Amino acid sequence: MRIVLDGMGGDNAPAEIVKGAVQAAAAVDHDIIIVGKQEAIEEELRNCKYTGDKITIVPANDMITMEDSPVKAIRRKKDASMVVGLNMIKNGEGDLFISGGNTGALVVGSRLLLGRISGIDRPVLASIYPCLGYEPSLLVDAGASSESKANNLLEYGLMGSIYVEKVWGRKAPRVGLVNLGVEEGKGTSVTKDAYQRLKLTDLNFVGNVEAREIPKSACDVIVCDGFVGNVILKLTEGLAWNILKTVKGKLMTNIKTKLAAVMLKTQLMELKGDFDYEEYGGAPILGVNGPVIKIHGSSTASAVKNAVIKGIPYAEENVVETIRKAMLDVAETIEIDEEE
Amino acid sequence: MRIVLDGMGGDNAPAEIVKGAVQAAAAVDHDIIIVGKQEAIEEELRNCKYTGDKITIVPANDMITMEDSPVKAIRRKKDASMVVGLNMIKNGEGDLFISGGNTGALVVGSRLLLGRISGIDRPVLASIYPCLGYEPSLLVDAGASSESKANNLLEYGLMGSIYVEKVWGRKAPRVGLVNLGVEEGKGTSVTKDAYQRLKLTDLNFVGNVEAREIPKSACDVIVCDGFVGNVILKLTEGLAWNILKTVKGKLMTNIKTKLAAVMLKTQLMELKGDFDYEEYGGAPILGVNGPVIKIHGSSTASAVKNAVIKGIPYAEENVVETIRKAMLDVAETIEIDEEE
Repeated sequence: MRIVLDGMGGDNAPAEIVKGAVQAAAAVDHDIIIVGKQEAIEEELRNCKYTGDKITIVPANDMITMEDSPVKAIRRKKDASMVVGLNMIKNGEGDLFISGGNTGALVVGSRLLLGRISGIDRPVLASIYPCLGYEPSLLVDAGASSESKANNLLEYGLMGSIYVEKVWGRKAPRVGLVNLGVEEGKGTSVTKDAYQRLKLTDLNFVGNVEAREIPKSACDVIVCDGFVGNVILKLTEGLAWNILKTVKGKLMTNIKTKLAAVMLKTQLMELKGDFDYEEYGGAPILGVNGPVIKIHGSSTASAVKNAVIKGIPYAEENVVETIRKAMLDVAETIEIDEEE
Repeated sequence: MRIVLDGMGGDNAPAEIVKGAVQAAAAVDHDIIIVGKQEAIEEELRNCKYTGDKITIVPANDMITMEDSPVKAIRRKKDASMVVGLNMIKNGEGDLFISGGNTGALVVGSRLLLGRISGIDRPVLASIYPCLGYEPSLLVDAGASSESKANNLLEYGLMGSIYVEKVWGRKAPRVGLVNLGVEEGKGTSVTKDAYQRLKLTDLNFVGNVEAREIPKSACDVIVCDGFVGNVILKLTEGLAWNILKTVKGKLMTNIKTKLAAVMLKTQLMELKGDFDYEEYGGAPILGVNGPVIKIHGSSTASAVKNAVIKGIPYAEENVVETIRKAMLDVAETIEIDEEE
């Protein structure tokens, strides 16, 4: 397998990307191709004292910045590392693409350059949702599109379920639809319609899920439109930050509480670690003709390494082809049922 | 002023409602009228050893349960305590109505029996949003309707701002629109349109607010549709519960952490208290021709007392009339601007 890394994507590129590639090369038996400015990447490889032959460089002299408009950048910056990398996947010169660059550009670029999987109306960015004390869930849509039709929500459930099963190795993932209440008739016209469609599939559809239950691992695949997904992810981040800040403040109240804080050092470190989902790898773009993974712009070498290792099944397990076949089946099931 | 309490609404009715009324009667110089089953309420008053003349009873022999369908219950149960109480506000026999009963029925009943304020398309339930370490915000819509038009979001901002200013006493409340990003062009067609409308008002509109900033008191009035509002409130509840459970688990790890927990007892109690917003009173229904406040179904006597005390300005400060006038002004402003 050939894993293609966007050498210029993210705040710490190319240094952390290259370091992560070197760590990954020691851990997996696959070729790693770094796309980007050749001299800069070569220099980082020398800094890592890398002398192996698993890592190669494909030159790309331009890059897409965080300020670039996604559509324009993908169309005009033909020599940007992200565009070159995506084209390698398209042309069969690579099997998995990983980037920490401009999220909008990566989603748009995946759609424009790789194309949608046949039967999929809207490719989407999924995201890992941290559930303290439980395995994480996969949230789809993580904010790639703001409005979704019922059919899009069906696609999200289906693609999310296949990803969690094939890539995370969970059997019959529980698919839940974010809604106002658990009863079947709850919600907007879109969620009501999506509920009926999801019910017709072979998915392990657990029905509507209230937001209260999401952090308690109510389901493995959290299905919602991009607006709601964005609210769920960002509110979780903001609230966790605020609660931990408050706890920290209370520990600094006086000598006694400071002493207690010292006694709890191990547990406090654990708590911080519980919020760190780097070990689960990056966030997949689902519904395009090729495996693409988005990593955080601030990813460290260790996050890059994990994204490589955890992302391999996205390519090896034929997720793209499985989604294509599943969409064919679903189209038949739902059509038959609508005719009845 | 005459404050009308739904004596039969909530899990602890009538006992905690009556106890709360007795506590409130000692604290405020207003008449308190409890609507409900006369004998049961009289018995609770005797249990409280109440002998004053501030509290009176208006009999109502039926009640709306949590299982009742809101519209049907309001239309058919003419002698339910909630219906009798709302009709007292309508007929000028009371100035403020407070209920811990079926939320849907209270919203529907307020609309049907009191009617919408002239110019308001959609009355709405607001909710107090707890911000640890800051004063709470008011979230509108808290889930009364699942879909909203741009004009509804404008109304929510306007009504929320008037309520926070008049009832909570905050000058020029910061009104924020929940959106995908802070930039003006972000979001769905509805939020983009709502942004433009809110900008044209005299409100202290702080623009789009990302969900990450909500727990950090990004604004005093959080404007969003009912679906998103429901997700924000319930996710906050579920996540806070899960984080505190995890912290508690870590404190129980071993002898040393248990000792630290004992040393932190005061601070842990404080933390629990920080999540308790009973002292801020109940959640107002905004946009109907009369002040109505919803309290939690599990409200204790102390919550009932606080809802009475904190709810008085909703009636005394002419919030309803202020909303009516503000809607007239806004209709003019936005019309003028659209003609330009």
